Amino acid sequence: MIQRPRGTRDFGPEEMERRRFLENIMRREADLFGFREVSTPIFEHTELFTLKSGPNVVEEIYSFQDKGGREISLRPELTAPVMRFFVNELSNSPRPLKMFYFGQCFRYERPQSGRYREFYQFGAELIGNPGPGSDAEVIALAASIMRRIGLKEYTIRIGHIGVLRGLLARAGIDGVRAPPILQKLDKKEYEEARARMTEAGMSPEDIEHIVEITQTSGPVEVLRKIEGEARDHLEAVFRILSDYGFTNVEVDLGVVRGLDYYTGMVFEMDAPVLGAEKQICGGGSYSLTELFGGEKSFSTGFGIGFDRTLLALEREGYQSPAHQVEAFVIPVSASVRDEAFSITAMLRRNCVSTEVDLMGRNISKNFKHAAAINARRAIIVGEKELAQGSVTVRDMSTGEQELVRREDILSAFKK
Amino acid sequence: MIQRPRGTRDFGPEEMERRRFLENIMRREADLFGFREVSTPIFEHTELFTLKSGPNVVEEIYSFQDKGGREISLRPELTAPVMRFFVNELSNSPRPLKMFYFGQCFRYERPQSGRYREFYQFGAELIGNPGPGSDAEVIALAASIMRRIGLKEYTIRIGHIGVLRGLLARAGIDGVRAPPILQKLDKKEYEEARARMTEAGMSPEDIEHIVEITQTSGPVEVLRKIEGEARDHLEAVFRILSDYGFTNVEVDLGVVRGLDYYTGMVFEMDAPVLGAEKQICGGGSYSLTELFGGEKSFSTGFGIGFDRTLLALEREGYQSPAHQVEAFVIPVSASVRDEAFSITAMLRRNCVSTEVDLMGRNISKNFKHAAAINARRAIIVGEKELAQGSVTVRDMSTGEQELVRREDILSAFKK
Repeated sequence: MIQRPRGTRDFGPEEMERRRFLENIMRREADLFGFREVSTPIFEHTELFTLKSGPNVVEEIYSFQDKGGREISLRPELTAPVMRFFVNELSNSPRPLKMFYFGQCFRYERPQSGRYREFYQFGAELIGNPGPGSDAEVIALAASIMRRIGLKEYTIRIGHIGVLRGLLARAGIDGVRAPPILQKLDKKEYEEARARMTEAGMSPEDIEHIVEITQTSGPVEVLRKIEGEARDHLEAVFRILSDYGFTNVEVDLGVVRGLDYYTGMVFEMDAPVLGAEKQICGGGSYSLTELFGGEKSFSTGFGIGFDRTLLALEREGYQSPAHQVEAFVIPVSASVRDEAFSITAMLRRNCVSTEVDLMGRNISKNFKHAAAINARRAIIVGEKELAQGSVTVRDMSTGEQELVRREDILSAFKK
Repeated sequence: MIQRPRGTRDFGPEEMERRRFLENIMRREADLFGFREVSTPIFEHTELFTLKSGPNVVEEIYSFQDKGGREISLRPELTAPVMRFFVNELSNSPRPLKMFYFGQCFRYERPQSGRYREFYQFGAELIGNPGPGSDAEVIALAASIMRRIGLKEYTIRIGHIGVLRGLLARAGIDGVRAPPILQKLDKKEYEEARARMTEAGMSPEDIEHIVEITQTSGPVEVLRKIEGEARDHLEAVFRILSDYGFTNVEVDLGVVRGLDYYTGMVFEMDAPVLGAEKQICGGGSYSLTELFGGEKSFSTGFGIGFDRTLLALEREGYQSPAHQVEAFVIPVSASVRDEAFSITAMLRRNCVSTEVDLMGRNISKNFKHAAAINARRAIIVGEKELAQGSVTVRDMSTGEQELVRREDILSAFKK
């Protein structure tokens, strides 16, 4: 037997139904917010991702040469492709431009629990202005999606990359020297962060102040510890989220997201039910359009890990509705098969999901199959009944049967 | 600027809305027929495709080595992956097993009008029994999809690979010698087909008979030219399709589909509006499960070229409904922004698609933006009105305005 590639998945009917159901709720919520879907190719020129994340990213992604010798990579995320699309074709759209996307991403890493080489991301990007309204809008969308899909427990942690960058700059650390320190702080590896700050010549007081700020988290009031634009901005974001009715929001100045292109607000969402690997969403405001050859634009967005969000829902006991077929049509003999197909076609045309015996089974085996596919009703087409213009309709859960006239079948299903 | 890879496409909001709309109609139709969605990875072990289509297929597909040295290919079609999935995990499902899929496929070929390196396929596979009911079921689904999406003109041409295979076998040509001849006949390259048949030692009478049969097309009555099982089978398929109300069906014994794994009925659908590249769907009954290490199973299915079907619809003048946003909320000053966000959140929570000014624009610029995003109504939140518990609702198409009490906003939108 040929196996599927390692780290990838096949989805059967039950799982696919659940996935599409949740994907459609997410899509619908984005639509309610005025975000509109865009789509980009599965692969891109590798340069797009190295520009955004540095040359080392190639080690973690599926990159290869196509037959024309071009360096190509399966997309590891969707922000870079969507911003490339924006720069190439959408930069004259009215602002704010609100886009969302859903699709597969790929990374080459050791497969482990809840992490796949092919995984799904749902995300949104807003290109507009740097006001707190834009940041609040994307956080509210991510949170509304979680509320709408019915995730019971999740938290939203919001920080601002400008706070630590500002403190580092004031201590004389900026440009290329800041990111390695920020990355250590992001991973909460404080000892290594301290070592790097010491190496960089920072005073012990400055170092301890930065570590303390990084560890600042809690309700909006903890913002009193800091001052300046970042504080005003975050307070305004919190206020709008409170207008939205979201109370599970807290400040976490340790959210740094370790990536150079973030410019201001950054946020993460966790589902505690997932334990250590609890993050289900991450985002913030960023700057990428200039890197891709476009004009400077203010952007803010997020990516939701679709697979992990699903896992969180399931761990919370989410039950998807059982799949049903409305009707299963059973011809009792060859002479009524045409009529059975006709009834089947009529019901389907009128949007009643219908199956018909294709295996030439006898009636009791057909009842078994109707139960196996969870049919609500069976329509038994018999010679005698048909000669009198009727068929038998059986309720598959109660076993009750009634004669229904041929022309009344549809109305029996519409009630 | 970084360009997208050659032969791929980005889809903007308008196009994406049209694509999702049609994709959902197709999905819904498959559901009405009792087919259920499955999904497989974007890439597979290359062996899966060479087993199905021969080693030369590698020249036409995106194949590469992953970092672990495995031979991997982006899927060029979805039947092989779905049958691999069936063999690996679904072979104990109740029969008939009815599956459908929708997704990207990839081929490395010179990009040309209407042909892309990344393209979309919608398809279905039925695993059950070899009766005409199974074949008719998949043809009826493909045809119902075309009817439901509103394609006005399309034809269904049905043949049977057993007819030509039988004639060739009777003339002493079978095994590996038949496919090269069948491929020439499939492409209607009769001179080359004649040359190959002559080389293979067939008599001029046998050759002319085969060419004549290959050119047989028309209403079901032309089946009188042939005899045997294939004829009985096709007549039964036509009868069921007529029960379904499909009259745009004809016999075309020249449909050979040039691939070794087809076993019986084969069919193609054309949209004449597309001109030379008019085929929008192809399928038939086939045998692949044994090749992939499973037990012999009877399968029949089809693949619809999603992009080409869309193109056909557009050429026929299909207009998708214009995108609308139900409400655009405009705060007239900073002091009413909280209330504006609150109203926005309330409407969205109640499934009214709503946008709110995020740019801090003045009222006339906001009206312009509301028109640009095709908002049906604007909600103007003014200080004076709000003090009296009301907001102004403006119909964006007529310009009519009315005062609406804060608590009645939702009902104004639900009517």
